[in-house]
Amino acid sequence: MAGTALELHPDRLLPADPGTRAIARDLYDRVRPLPLISPHGHIDPAVLLDNHPFPDPTTLLLTPDHYVTRLLHADGVELSALGVGQGELPEKASRQAWRLLCERWHVYQGTPVRYWLEAELAEIFGVTVAPSAQTADAIYDQVGAALADDAFRPRALFERFKISVVATTDDPCSDLAVHTALADDPAWPGRVIPTFRPDRYLDPGQPGWADAVAALGEAADIDTGAYTGYVAALEQRRRYFVAHGAVSADHSHLDARTDPLSPAEAARIYRAAVDDEAGTGETTAFRRHMLMEMARMSCEDGLVMTLHPGVRRNHHQPTFQRYGVDVGADIPVPVEFTDALRPLLERFGTHPGFHLVVFTVDETVWSRELAPMAAFYPCMYVGVPWWFLDAPDAIGRFRSAVTEIAGFSRSSGFVDDTRAFCSIPARHDMSRRVEAGFLARLVAEHRLGEDEAAAIAVDLVSAQPKAVFKL
Amino acid sequence: MAGTALELHPDRLLPADPGTRAIARDLYDRVRPLPLISPHGHIDPAVLLDNHPFPDPTTLLLTPDHYVTRLLHADGVELSALGVGQGELPEKASRQAWRLLCERWHVYQGTPVRYWLEAELAEIFGVTVAPSAQTADAIYDQVGAALADDAFRPRALFERFKISVVATTDDPCSDLAVHTALADDPAWPGRVIPTFRPDRYLDPGQPGWADAVAALGEAADIDTGAYTGYVAALEQRRRYFVAHGAVSADHSHLDARTDPLSPAEAARIYRAAVDDEAGTGETTAFRRHMLMEMARMSCEDGLVMTLHPGVRRNHHQPTFQRYGVDVGADIPVPVEFTDALRPLLERFGTHPGFHLVVFTVDETVWSRELAPMAAFYPCMYVGVPWWFLDAPDAIGRFRSAVTEIAGFSRSSGFVDDTRAFCSIPARHDMSRRVEAGFLARLVAEHRLGEDEAAAIAVDLVSAQPKAVFKL
Amino acid sequence: MAGTALELHPDRLLPADPGTRAIARDLYDRVRPLPLISPHGHIDPAVLLDNHPFPDPTTLLLTPDHYVTRLLHADGVELSALGVGQGELPEKASRQAWRLLCERWHVYQGTPVRYWLEAELAEIFGVTVAPSAQTADAIYDQVGAALADDAFRPRALFERFKISVVATTDDPCSDLAVHTALADDPAWPGRVIPTFRPDRYLDPGQPGWADAVAALGEAADIDTGAYTGYVAALEQRRRYFVAHGAVSADHSHLDARTDPLSPAEAARIYRAAVDDEAGTGETTAFRRHMLMEMARMSCEDGLVMTLHPGVRRNHHQPTFQRYGVDVGADIPVPVEFTDALRPLLERFGTHPGFHLVVFTVDETVWSRELAPMAAFYPCMYVGVPWWFLDAPDAIGRFRSAVTEIAGFSRSSGFVDDTRAFCSIPARHDMSRRVEAGFLARLVAEHRLGEDEAAAIAVDLVSAQPKAVFKL
Repeated sequence: MAGTALELHPDRLLPADPGTRAIARDLYDRVRPLPLISPHGHIDPAVLLDNHPFPDPTTLLLTPDHYVTRLLHADGVELSALGVGQGELPEKASRQAWRLLCERWHVYQGTPVRYWLEAELAEIFGVTVAPSAQTADAIYDQVGAALADDAFRPRALFERFKISVVATTDDPCSDLAVHTALADDPAWPGRVIPTFRPDRYLDPGQPGWADAVAALGEAADIDTGAYTGYVAALEQRRRYFVAHGAVSADHSHLDARTDPLSPAEAARIYRAAVDDEAGTGETTAFRRHMLMEMARMSCEDGLVMTLHPGVRRNHHQPTFQRYGVDVGADIPVPVEFTDALRPLLERFGTHPGFHLVVFTVDETVWSRELAPMAAFYPCMYVGVPWWFLDAPDAIGRFRSAVTEIAGFSRSSGFVDDTRAFCSIPARHDMSRRVEAGFLARLVAEHRLGEDEAAAIAVDLVSAQPKAVFKL
Repeated sequence: MAGTALELHPDRLLPADPGTRAIARDLYDRVRPLPLISPHGHIDPAVLLDNHPFPDPTTLLLTPDHYVTRLLHADGVELSALGVGQGELPEKASRQAWRLLCERWHVYQGTPVRYWLEAELAEIFGVTVAPSAQTADAIYDQVGAALADDAFRPRALFERFKISVVATTDDPCSDLAVHTALADDPAWPGRVIPTFRPDRYLDPGQPGWADAVAALGEAADIDTGAYTGYVAALEQRRRYFVAHGAVSADHSHLDARTDPLSPAEAARIYRAAVDDEAGTGETTAFRRHMLMEMARMSCEDGLVMTLHPGVRRNHHQPTFQRYGVDVGADIPVPVEFTDALRPLLERFGTHPGFHLVVFTVDETVWSRELAPMAAFYPCMYVGVPWWFLDAPDAIGRFRSAVTEIAGFSRSSGFVDDTRAFCSIPARHDMSRRVEAGFLARLVAEHRLGEDEAAAIAVDLVSAQPKAVFKL
Repeated sequence: MAGTALELHPDRLLPADPGTRAIARDLYDRVRPLPLISPHGHIDPAVLLDNHPFPDPTTLLLTPDHYVTRLLHADGVELSALGVGQGELPEKASRQAWRLLCERWHVYQGTPVRYWLEAELAEIFGVTVAPSAQTADAIYDQVGAALADDAFRPRALFERFKISVVATTDDPCSDLAVHTALADDPAWPGRVIPTFRPDRYLDPGQPGWADAVAALGEAADIDTGAYTGYVAALEQRRRYFVAHGAVSADHSHLDARTDPLSPAEAARIYRAAVDDEAGTGETTAFRRHMLMEMARMSCEDGLVMTLHPGVRRNHHQPTFQRYGVDVGADIPVPVEFTDALRPLLERFGTHPGFHLVVFTVDETVWSRELAPMAAFYPCMYVGVPWWFLDAPDAIGRFRSAVTEIAGFSRSSGFVDDTRAFCSIPARHDMSRRVEAGFLARLVAEHRLGEDEAAAIAVDLVSAQPKAVFKL
C-alpha cells in the first residue's frame, strides 16, 4: 500500500535537548518493559470473559472512543456517519466511517489521540503507512484481517499488553457475575477488578433516581423506602464489591462539595425525593451530603475514594437526545476544592488508611488547591492528568505545578481511564515517556540525582499506584 | 548618532536548543515571505483613503498605542505628557513625548511592545541605534524625515507590508463611505473590509444607549421605537455591512452569557429601556439575549461571530474622565464560557456555515473550556492570544494548552487587533516565529513530521484564517 | 559517616541547554556574591539581640518550619512527633524527630524544601552525606556540634549570610523594644526593621478582636471605644513603627476587597462590633473598608502596603485546636483582584509615592489581573512568587506570565518570607539562579541583550527591592 510511512521514532516524546534526552532515554528504558497497572478505566469485562474476536477496525478503534469521534464531529462529520448510536455496523458503513477517519487524519496533528492511534496501528497491528484517503482501505483490510487471528483476541492482547491488573467501572446493582466468572476461569490468569460507581444513586436531582434506589434496594435485599435503609443498602453493595475484588469507589458530580446534613434532614430530603417533592436546592444538598457519607464508608470498608468533578455532562442537548451519553460533548467547568472538601477533610483527613484521590480537568487547581492539600493531608493524593489533560504537555504542566509543592509521593500513579482497550499500552507508554522527560530535566538541572530519578520513574508505575489504590 | 546598536537578530524568538532552532528556522523561512491577513483590527481606513503623510513619530508610534503608553504611565509619566487626549501635537510636545519614550526604554525589556517597536524602527525606518536619552532626538529626526517621503505614506507602507486584506472595526450606523471610496478607487489595489461592532447598541445598561438605538433607526430607516423594529434595524445594518464586504461581527461585553428571552420579555425590557425605566438585571438580561440574537443573525447572514469578553473597561475612572476610552486602563476579569455559551451552542452549535471565534485574556479557559468546546462544536474556533497575551511565551502557552485537545484546525489564524498601523508586520512576524518554534519542538520531539509541520505553519497564516473568517 | 554523598552542583537550577546555561552561569556569577535584601519575613529579632546559640538541629531546622513539617505529616507522621506545639524538646525527642526527617527524605524530592535544606546542611554546616535513616544521627551530631561553636551563633550567621537588611513581622501593639535594643547595640552592625502587621485589629469577625482593639488603645494611649479613636490609634501605631524603622505594612485577609464605607457607617459597625453585635456581613464590610483605610494611611505615612490574600487559614480544625496556627494546614483559595482593588486604585492608584505590592498563591491572576494592573498603575508592583509558589518552576511561570505584560520594573524584588533563619541564603540563591536562567533564555532567544540581562539580574536583587520597599 502506498502513502507516507508510519514510523514510531524510538525517542518520541522525549525532550529535544540532547543532554536531557540521553538521561530521559535511560530512565524510559527502565520503565518501558514494566507491567501495566490500570486502577481506573472503562473497558467491558465481558469482552475478556467471552474472548470473541473484535468485530472490525471501526467498532474497535473509532466508534466507541469519544476522544476520536469528537474531533471528527468538530470537523463537520455527523456522529452517525461514525457509527455512533447505531449498534452493530454493517461492513459498508464500518469501512466508510474508517475512511472518514483516515481522510481527516490531520485533525489529530499535535494531539495525544494521534499518538495513541499511531501506536495502536503500528505496534499492535503492524501498519506501516500513515492513515490517509489513499491508505484507508488498505489499513482497514490489514487491521480487519488481524482481528480474525486468534492472536488478536481480547485475552491474547491482554497478555501481550502485560496488564497486571485492570479495574472496570460498575453499577452498584451489578451482581459482578462477569468478574466472578473471569476470576473462576482457570484458563484466565489476569486480574480484572470492579469499581463501585454510585453517582446516579446519590443525586436525587438526576432523572431516574427513584427507580435507581428502588433497584438498589432489590440488589441489596434491603428496603430503601427510607434513608436508613438506603444508606444500609449502599453499605451492603460496597461490601459486596469489596468481596468481589473492588479497591475503589469513583465519584463524578458537577462539584466536589461535601457539606454534611443532620441525619434527620438527610432522611427528610430523601423521603421528599422518593416522593418527587424535593427541590433543586434540596437534591443538591443531599448529593453533597452523600459524598461525605461515601467518605465515611470508605473509612470503614477501605475502598479508595476517587473524585472526578467539574464536568458539564451532555453540554449539547440535541446530541444527547440523539446519541446519549459519553459521545464527546462533555465540557469542563471551573471547580473549587479547598472549601468544597474541607468538611470531608476535617472529619476524615487524617483517618488511618483512608485514601482520597482527586482528579481534575481544571488545571488551575493543581498548584492552588490540590497540591497544597495533598502536601498536608495523609489521605489525599493528586490524581494524574485526566481526560482532556492526559497529554504530553499537560502532564508536564501537572508535574511542574504539583511536584514543587507536594513532591512525587503525593500523586497517584498513572490512570488510563479509557474505553479503548487497544489504547491502554499506548497511553501508559506516553505517560512513561513524558514522566521520564520531566525527571530527566530535574536531573539535567541538578535538582535530582540520576539514581533517584530512576527510582522515582519505576515507583510511579509500580509501587505508587499499588500503594495509592491498595492493589 | 551614538548609542547601543539596534540590530534584529535573524533567529530572534526561535528556540534556544540548536536542533530545535534549525527546524524552526526552516519552518519560519517558509512563512516569512507570505502576505499578511488581518481579519480583525482597529486601523482607520481614512488614513488609507486620504493617504496623507503621517504627521510625526509620536503621533504615529506612541500617542495612540495604549500598549506603549500604559507602561510609561506605570513608570510615572502622565498620559498628557505623551500627547494622549490632546489632538494634534505641537512639534515641541511631540519631541518631548518621544524623549520620554526613549529615556524609559528599559520598561519594555522582555515585552512584545519592545519587539514590535524595535522591528518598526529598524525594518521600516532603518534606525540603527537603540532608543535612549542620548539617541531620542536623532531617532525622532530620522523617523520624522522618513515620514515626509512618499515611500512612507500609508498606501506605500500598506503595499510594502504585503497586507492582502485588513478588516477595520466599525459602528453599525456607519455608511462605510470610506470603505466604498477605497473600493471604488482604481488606484487602490488593496482590500480593506469593515467589521460590524454593535456593542453599544446591544447593552441598554451603557450610557447613551437610547440615543444609539434612535440613530440606528435612522441609519436603517426603520423605526426602532419597539423591539421588532430594533431587531429589524440591526438585521438591516448587518446586511448593509455584508454588502460592503464585511465578513465578521465582533462583540465585547463583560461576560459571554447568551441566555435567550422570550420575544415578549425582550420587547418589554426594550420598551422599558427606551423609557429609561429598566433595572440593571433587566438590561443585563437583554444584552445577553441580544448576543444570542447576534448568533441567530450570523447563521442567517453569514457574518463570522467573534467574541472578546472579560475585560473591566476604564478601570480607573479619573483616567477615563480625563482621557476617555482605550488608554491602557482596561483590566481583565475571570470569564466563564462553558455555561455562558451553552444556550447559543445548543441552538446554533451545529448550524451549517456558522462560525464562532472566541478570544480571551483569561488564559485559564484555554484548556478548561475553549479547547474542549472547539473540539466538539463544528462552529467554534479558539481565537489566538489577544491583547495582553499576544506575546511570545503566552502564544507558546496557548498552543500547548489548546493543541493537545483541539489540534491546529480548531484555532483561528493570527489576529493582530492593533491600532498601530506600523506594528502590523512586526506582530505577524512575531507570531510566525513563535508558531515556528512551537511546531519545531513537536518535530524535535517526534510528535509531528517536518513536512506536516511546514504545511501547518503555512496553513496557520493563509488557509486557516481565510477559512475561519470566510475571506 | 556512610551514605550517598551530598554535593551541590555549581550549575544547579540553571537551564539544561548548554548555550543557555553558559549565559545563565555568567548572569548568576554577577549576582551570587551580592548582599541579601529581605524586605518581608518572619524571623524573631530577639534571636539576634540575645545571640544565644541555637539549641539543636531539630529546633533550628525542622520543628518551626511548616514547609518541612507538612510533607512529613502528609507522609503519616504526627506533628507532635516532630516537636510541633511542645515548647523546648528533650534531646531524645529532638533526635527522634530528626531521624523521621532523614528517613523520609524522599518526600522532598523535586521540592524547593529539599533544595533549601541541602544548601543549609552543606553550605552552612559542612554536611557531606545525604540525609537517610543511616546518616540521621551523624548529621544530627555534626550540626549539633557546630551549633555550640560561636561561629554558628545568630549574629555570626547573619554576617556570614551577608544580609544587608531584614524585616520582621510585628504586632502593632509591640513597643519594638527588641528592635530598639538592636539598633542601639554598638556591637551590632546589622539592619533589622519591623513591619506593621495589623490583620487581627482590622477584622472584627476574628475571635479576640475586641480585646485587640482595647490593647491597641492602650498601646497608642488613645481611647478606642469609638471608631475615630480606633483610626487615630492605628495611625499613631503606624507612625511609631515608621519612627522605629518600618518601611511597610503587611496585610493578609481572605480576600482583597477594598470597598469603602461612609465614616458614619464605619463608626456604626465598629460600635456594634465592640458590643459583639455585628453580623458577619457587617464585620466583613468593615474589614474591607479598613483595608482601604490602610491604603489611605500608607499614602500619608509612606509605609509600603503589601497584600497576601487568598488563603484559607487553619483548614483542618483538629490540627488548629491541637497545634495552633502556622503548622502547614493553610490552603489557598481562588482570589480576585481586578474588581477587589478597584476602589483602592481609583482613589490612590496614582498617588505620588504610594507603593502597593500584591502577592498571590493563585497563579491564575498573574497574567490576568496583577500584571495588567501593575502595567498601568504607578503605585502597583507584582510580588514575586510566595509560599507554595516560591520554587524554581513556579518562578519561571511567574516571570513568563508577568514580564511580557509588565516588564521587569513592575515586579517586587525577591522576598524570602521565611521563619527559617538558616534558609535565607538558600532561598535568595535559588531565586537568583532561576532568575538568571529566565534571563538567559531571553538572551538565547535574542529577546534581550546580554548586557541588559546582566543589569536586570543585578537590579532585581539590589536597586529594585530597595526602590519598591523604600529601603
